Amino acid sequence: MPRIVRFHETGGPAVLGLDEVEVPQPGADEVVIEAQALGLNRAEEMFRKGQYVQEPVLPAKIGYEVAGTVRDVGENVTHLRSGDAVSVIPAFGMTDYGMHGEVVLAPAHAVVKHPEHLSWDEGAAAWMMFITAYGGLIDLAGVGEGDTVLIPAASSSVGLAAIQICSMVGATPVALSRTSSKRQALLDHGAAAVIATQEQHVAAEVHRLTGGAGARVAFDPVGGPAFAELTASLAEHGIILVYGALDSENTPLPVMDVLGKHLTIRGYELFELTTDPIRRAQAAEFVFNGLEKGDLKPVISATFALDDIVAAHEYMASNQQLGKIIVQVGA
Amino acid sequence: MPRIVRFHETGGPAVLGLDEVEVPQPGADEVVIEAQALGLNRAEEMFRKGQYVQEPVLPAKIGYEVAGTVRDVGENVTHLRSGDAVSVIPAFGMTDYGMHGEVVLAPAHAVVKHPEHLSWDEGAAAWMMFITAYGGLIDLAGVGEGDTVLIPAASSSVGLAAIQICSMVGATPVALSRTSSKRQALLDHGAAAVIATQEQHVAAEVHRLTGGAGARVAFDPVGGPAFAELTASLAEHGIILVYGALDSENTPLPVMDVLGKHLTIRGYELFELTTDPIRRAQAAEFVFNGLEKGDLKPVISATFALDDIVAAHEYMASNQQLGKIIVQVGA
Repeated sequence: MPRIVRFHETGGPAVLGLDEVEVPQPGADEVVIEAQALGLNRAEEMFRKGQYVQEPVLPAKIGYEVAGTVRDVGENVTHLRSGDAVSVIPAFGMTDYGMHGEVVLAPAHAVVKHPEHLSWDEGAAAWMMFITAYGGLIDLAGVGEGDTVLIPAASSSVGLAAIQICSMVGATPVALSRTSSKRQALLDHGAAAVIATQEQHVAAEVHRLTGGAGARVAFDPVGGPAFAELTASLAEHGIILVYGALDSENTPLPVMDVLGKHLTIRGYELFELTTDPIRRAQAAEFVFNGLEKGDLKPVISATFALDDIVAAHEYMASNQQLGKIIVQVGA
Repeated sequence: MPRIVRFHETGGPAVLGLDEVEVPQPGADEVVIEAQALGLNRAEEMFRKGQYVQEPVLPAKIGYEVAGTVRDVGENVTHLRSGDAVSVIPAFGMTDYGMHGEVVLAPAHAVVKHPEHLSWDEGAAAWMMFITAYGGLIDLAGVGEGDTVLIPAASSSVGLAAIQICSMVGATPVALSRTSSKRQALLDHGAAAVIATQEQHVAAEVHRLTGGAGARVAFDPVGGPAFAELTASLAEHGIILVYGALDSENTPLPVMDVLGKHLTIRGYELFELTTDPIRRAQAAEFVFNGLEKGDLKPVISATFALDDIVAAHEYMASNQQLGKIIVQVGA
């Protein structure tokens, strides 16, 4: 029987285990995928800890991303057939589907073919990072030519995706990272500038970089006390897209900045795109084209074997990575 | 020589005085107004204290609203002539112009004729309250039929204006007030429901009133710890317009609500409308028509004589009022 990743209690990486389950039967609008590679995400770490916007129902499946081969499709599925090489757009809740396992069930609307030159690892890495960044930057904030965009947690996979998407549309990506240890790597990955938030005065640097104007957009998965540095760094009518809450400390809202500069703060999750057929199709087309042309390229930090799923989550928690963590199935 | 209200140091109401000044000469795009009535605003209280988004330059003129008679116009002014009955839309900074005095200078773009049936007191009361509420609710949030709108500080002039504008467009105005002492008065002024925030559980009440859905819009001049009650009360994709910071305590940003419900928080000042000729004209037309038809009616809480300007500011600070405080010039 195939094995899937599950947890029977919330907690640290060690709560994850590999449970043997029956091969799933696809419902009418479902697809069965034989996995080759799994992509790991912060959302899964928070889900595993019981700190995510969705509460896990135990024992809980987990995982938003997989690449592999179609093994079976439900009767309504016409865009795929057995043997197709596919990957999965996060367009479902983990309380309904979990992608991390040897053989997994996915809703057909989330299963897509990726550009042929992508490896399995890249296929499993691409969709969450690029669609999350696309949705915030392009769909919601309309980033384009001439915009300066602040990217906290820039060495995360979504942070690196945001850098690439900014470059692709002519905007200026400014990477924010806690220390300068990843400065050169972030410049190598396309950041126009890097600000080490524990070593530099963020707002002063941003104003220096923008000739005093401030940045138009910040794309923030962190929150916490550092949030005030973002509001101080924005231009009039700037927008902060809040797409995560990595800092568990309280986030103060700097009301005078918000008021005086007419700032917008917008909570954003990619699911508001990926559960809307039209916006999902626009997002998938943008990302597919970027991947196909090579403007967008998944950044993979490390690969693990499925047996080492606990170590893979420990590595994610260590914050050493630059980009995506991939678990190779059958490796 | 005419007297104008000024302060020579920031502080409490007592810093205000009446200084004699020369009758001003209008610049090419300016208008001289002989005042009949002055409207008081929270913004002036904060400006007087040195806590406003603009820093006063001492000695500082003050005041956003006046109604009176045109005494003189600059050479470029074609839409007004001496003797016209006019009032003033706040479309300037108080560091440039102050409307509180016996004879004052105003920028021509801000001076308008109000509907003829309005009294001087009503003319001086109308523009700040209704344009502020219009800008947040209609221009930015697109409030209309079926929307539920939360209105903290509902007994303020802008709060009462928001209630009237919601009713005018078919939305449901829910007034928030600290205690139940103003409950009946707020119902009498058109609130569909009143929540006493120190006596009731705000989010539970809002969910009860909306059949579990939450409110789509909150229109908040307060901030502070109570801000979390607003995010908890909003529906998915709800929006909070922050147009003031009356609570000087820190405002926590409830990131999980913002994220999980994809909320928008937008700092808003009426000046972003009133300094834009097109949006100012749309706002003025909406408010003029509402005033003319009687759908909108300024609510005046108390009137003072100009000699009692200090007492008028003390009354504003006491929070007893329901609606606008007016100072009658020559009374």
